[in-house]
Amino acid sequence: MNKKTILGFLGNICILEAILMLFPLLVGFIYKESFLTINAFLITMAILLVLGFLLRKLTPKHPKYNLKEGFAITGISWFLLSFFGGLPFVLANELNSLIDSTFEMASGFTTTGSSIIPNVEAISQSLLFWRSFSHLIGGMGVLVFAFAFIPRMGEGSVNIMKAEVPGPTFGKVTSKNQSSAGILYQIYLVMTAVLVLLLMLTGMNLFDSLIHAFGAAGTGGFSNKILSVGYFNNPAAEYILSIAMILFGVNFNLYYLLLKKHFKQVFKNEELRLFLTIITIACILIMLNIGKDYSSLEKLFRDVLFTVSTIISTTGYATVDFGLWPLFSHLVLLLIMFTGSMAGSTAGGLKQSRILIYLKSFKREIQCAMNPRLVKPITVDEKPVSSSYIKSVLNYLGLYLSIFVCGVLLVSVTQNDFLTAFSSVAATLNNIGPGMNLVGPSGNFAHFTPISKIVLTFMMIIGRLEIYPVLILLMPNLWKK
Amino acid sequence: MNKKTILGFLGNICILEAILMLFPLLVGFIYKESFLTINAFLITMAILLVLGFLLRKLTPKHPKYNLKEGFAITGISWFLLSFFGGLPFVLANELNSLIDSTFEMASGFTTTGSSIIPNVEAISQSLLFWRSFSHLIGGMGVLVFAFAFIPRMGEGSVNIMKAEVPGPTFGKVTSKNQSSAGILYQIYLVMTAVLVLLLMLTGMNLFDSLIHAFGAAGTGGFSNKILSVGYFNNPAAEYILSIAMILFGVNFNLYYLLLKKHFKQVFKNEELRLFLTIITIACILIMLNIGKDYSSLEKLFRDVLFTVSTIISTTGYATVDFGLWPLFSHLVLLLIMFTGSMAGSTAGGLKQSRILIYLKSFKREIQCAMNPRLVKPITVDEKPVSSSYIKSVLNYLGLYLSIFVCGVLLVSVTQNDFLTAFSSVAATLNNIGPGMNLVGPSGNFAHFTPISKIVLTFMMIIGRLEIYPVLILLMPNLWKK
Repeated sequence: MNKKTILGFLGNICILEAILMLFPLLVGFIYKESFLTINAFLITMAILLVLGFLLRKLTPKHPKYNLKEGFAITGISWFLLSFFGGLPFVLANELNSLIDSTFEMASGFTTTGSSIIPNVEAISQSLLFWRSFSHLIGGMGVLVFAFAFIPRMGEGSVNIMKAEVPGPTFGKVTSKNQSSAGILYQIYLVMTAVLVLLLMLTGMNLFDSLIHAFGAAGTGGFSNKILSVGYFNNPAAEYILSIAMILFGVNFNLYYLLLKKHFKQVFKNEELRLFLTIITIACILIMLNIGKDYSSLEKLFRDVLFTVSTIISTTGYATVDFGLWPLFSHLVLLLIMFTGSMAGSTAGGLKQSRILIYLKSFKREIQCAMNPRLVKPITVDEKPVSSSYIKSVLNYLGLYLSIFVCGVLLVSVTQNDFLTAFSSVAATLNNIGPGMNLVGPSGNFAHFTPISKIVLTFMMIIGRLEIYPVLILLMPNLWKK
Repeated sequence: MNKKTILGFLGNICILEAILMLFPLLVGFIYKESFLTINAFLITMAILLVLGFLLRKLTPKHPKYNLKEGFAITGISWFLLSFFGGLPFVLANELNSLIDSTFEMASGFTTTGSSIIPNVEAISQSLLFWRSFSHLIGGMGVLVFAFAFIPRMGEGSVNIMKAEVPGPTFGKVTSKNQSSAGILYQIYLVMTAVLVLLLMLTGMNLFDSLIHAFGAAGTGGFSNKILSVGYFNNPAAEYILSIAMILFGVNFNLYYLLLKKHFKQVFKNEELRLFLTIITIACILIMLNIGKDYSSLEKLFRDVLFTVSTIISTTGYATVDFGLWPLFSHLVLLLIMFTGSMAGSTAGGLKQSRILIYLKSFKREIQCAMNPRLVKPITVDEKPVSSSYIKSVLNYLGLYLSIFVCGVLLVSVTQNDFLTAFSSVAATLNNIGPGMNLVGPSGNFAHFTPISKIVLTFMMIIGRLEIYPVLILLMPNLWKK
């Protein structure tokens, strides 16, 4: 593996992050924030630029990114972005540990939305903006963003995109090449802009609308209020966000197909149907479970719809403290944490396309137990799916659960409550945000030990990059030439 | 499917159960038990014999058991055995619900060992003997037992054995035909007899030794004491049982190989090595986690070894209340509940041979992510394993976990504690016995609602028969001709 190719590319990432910091800097100027806060951004940008240009000098004349380099670059980039992204919090004295700041920004870029800040309303506007802005950037992939806006960078750059936007997709339009990445980014930004406008129409101010639109678009979930969306007490905004979160959990290729007027293809898409079915079932089950505590059917429906769409889209906003719901509802929420939304969306989790394969594969396995001579390939959207692909998707489930179990084991060394340990790892690995009990909507991640915070930071990045780019960094034979 | 073939076979099973009840009846006479208790067995035996002979009359002249009949017979038989096996408890007025008595005997035959009896020391000796005797019978498979001792029953009877002793095995000697089933049964009974003698040498009386040897041999775990093995306060018996439980968790084919002096083959067996490795790691992790609470290293080692071997062998005896241990130790125990012991043993869980395939398959998947052109088959014991077999084992994991999740969801409707709901389903599906919190070693299953008890009874039988024979009963197209 060519280490210089990797270091050179990381230089570009540093420069890109410095440029992105111009936005929160502008917010800082608008809100006339303290010298300390403004300076925190300026110092970080200076460090990033110096480091960036030094690293860029290492780039070979004709850089070539094969699969290994693609994985390594992606894995390292996300840790790098989180570390330097968090630096302004420490320099501005608003967080006092680099582990905390890295956790917070890994949570931002991976669109998780778990926070170690107990009182978010005491944080500067520029830092709050930066945190939420990272959701918007991280949603579609920082490196894909780099490719869409930076001129041609070298042969095989598709291997980097593959590593960052890995989900299994069955459609033909994918974001895995430069031009289509651009189209999908445009759809994404237009949808976000529309959401900002709609939220403002419900009476929210521009800043709040931007923060919450970024969080919904990237399915992240950082809010600038302790009570999250519940603070606004605004039913219209709650309905708009519920629907927006579901829409951002849909495969963006389907929007492209809609633009091209392939309505039938969208309507018949099996992954979309499964996604909507699971949302409906989850809403009904939870409404039946908690219905007796509500006097208004509308309020019950609104709270449950919001909670289900915030969890299945892996966003993590809250309008009610679902931590107070009974265990059955918690389990339904834990399950949809793991399913997540559709592949090719900004959401986390296992992805509905994999769930579809699992359901079909399990059903076929039962049929084969009764009739071993059955040979009929599994199909998705009327196309046969290869046996080796199914095996790989099944392996992914096992690996994902193994990593989950390791995470829970590590966290449980210092955290003795089962639901807290279980749901904190589920909420970070699946990029949700809040979990249950101590890490529920009314809690946060501040009380974990530094080691647990590092473990959970790893979980967020492993979940966002779908395992391999991070796992491969840990394998010694990657670093051999 | 031929329903008369099935009904005819079920008749044989009824007669077999009536014959097996002669043993507890004898115990009742020896202990001069009340007329009520003796009568409870006699009435049940009479019902079983009448029903059995009536059903047997339906058997076609040349019965033929294909795969579907094999599954159906196995699935129904286990429910039937549990229902009628539980009848004496209700007739003797020692349990007052047929749901409870069926639960208790399903727990016996499936070698689970979960109990709904709060005060086991108040139960008649004959009933306690019957409960534990069902572990011995259920351990190697009731239907296999039928085949080994009843003369030739018809073409394709191997399909019934396949359905009852399903575990994946790589060795050549299997219990799937009549003659080798006999050899394995002999090894099993000799080992049990030796265990009874050893326990008596430590000072336990004959009845207690029989009860605890049956529980260890079948890896069931019913005790006749509220404090389980802890009651005897007998370190020698604890060490003997620890080792015995591990030995009964070993694939019985390996003992056959030892008898044939194929020592090298046994020593090199990968599944055995994995099994012993996991036991060692689990013991070390738990000793590190709870070590500070012990002043004696010997006592620490003994308690941990006993608990790890009772859980990984899916027996479920207890010498300490591991419910009081910290969460980390609980999680290690929950994990080895799911791995279980080796295929071809009397234990439950996923089985070590599957765990071996998972580990190898996940590792290969990571290697393939880095190097997609890698084509090297996965091997076990130096023999290549087919890709379709691996896919089927991976599907099994998914199905198993799906059933587990459904079980936890159903139980959680009326049980609001996460660890209790989670571990009660884990303990029954994996045929362990006790779980944690309310169902821990010092608790029992009496407080569950009748519906939860039915769900947990299904979990025990699904776990014991490895899913398919039960799942297939629920599929409507099984019942078509």
